[in-house]
Amino acid sequence: MCPKYEAAAELLGKKWTGLIIRVLLGGPKRFKEIKEQIPEMSDKMLTDRMKELETMNVVKRTVYPEMPVRIEYELTSKGQGLEPVILSIQDWGEEWM
Amino acid sequence: MCPKYEAAAELLGKKWTGLIIRVLLGGPKRFKEIKEQIPEMSDKMLTDRMKELETMNVVKRTVYPEMPVRIEYELTSKGQGLEPVILSIQDWGEEWM
Repeated sequence: MCPKYEAAAELLGKKWTGLIIRVLLGGPKRFKEIKEQIPEMSDKMLTDRMKELETMNVVKRTVYPEMPVRIEYELTSKGQGLEPVILSIQDWGEEWM
Repeated sequence: MCPKYEAAAELLGKKWTGLIIRVLLGGPKRFKEIKEQIPEMSDKMLTDRMKELETMNVVKRTVYPEMPVRIEYELTSKGQGLEPVILSIQDWGEEWM
């Protein structure tokens, strides 16, 4: 148990984080595309969460130097590893909450 | 996704909660026995967490009218259902955090 569990559980317990990761499990997305799938979340909140997830190396941000610039977010291997974890939390939540 | 996921993830993200549930997966325990397995946690914190877990019906508290009174805490079915969830968070945490 211990610090690694606590850190992982804390990350997953932050509002919107599970949902953002879930959206990105569908493949790389632009900011606007993520927003469209979670309309209740503010732009600022999504920006903050994406920065956190990038800092934790769960999400990778790629800038494509086109005109206009295209920015895409995608899950790293670490982020993809969260799929079974999120599904297991969700299964339990749906059965018991 | 949604409120049920968020509520489940928030519960699991609270400090000590995962560890307390883990200890109780070993069977019913008295307050003192839980404390012995998590010595860094204060009495007040354990009391608060146990009340939360009881309110959420994750833990059941039974008072045995002996002399002196014996009080035991055990996981409900809802609480036992958290075993695979906690293991999955922990596996990911150990691999990636």
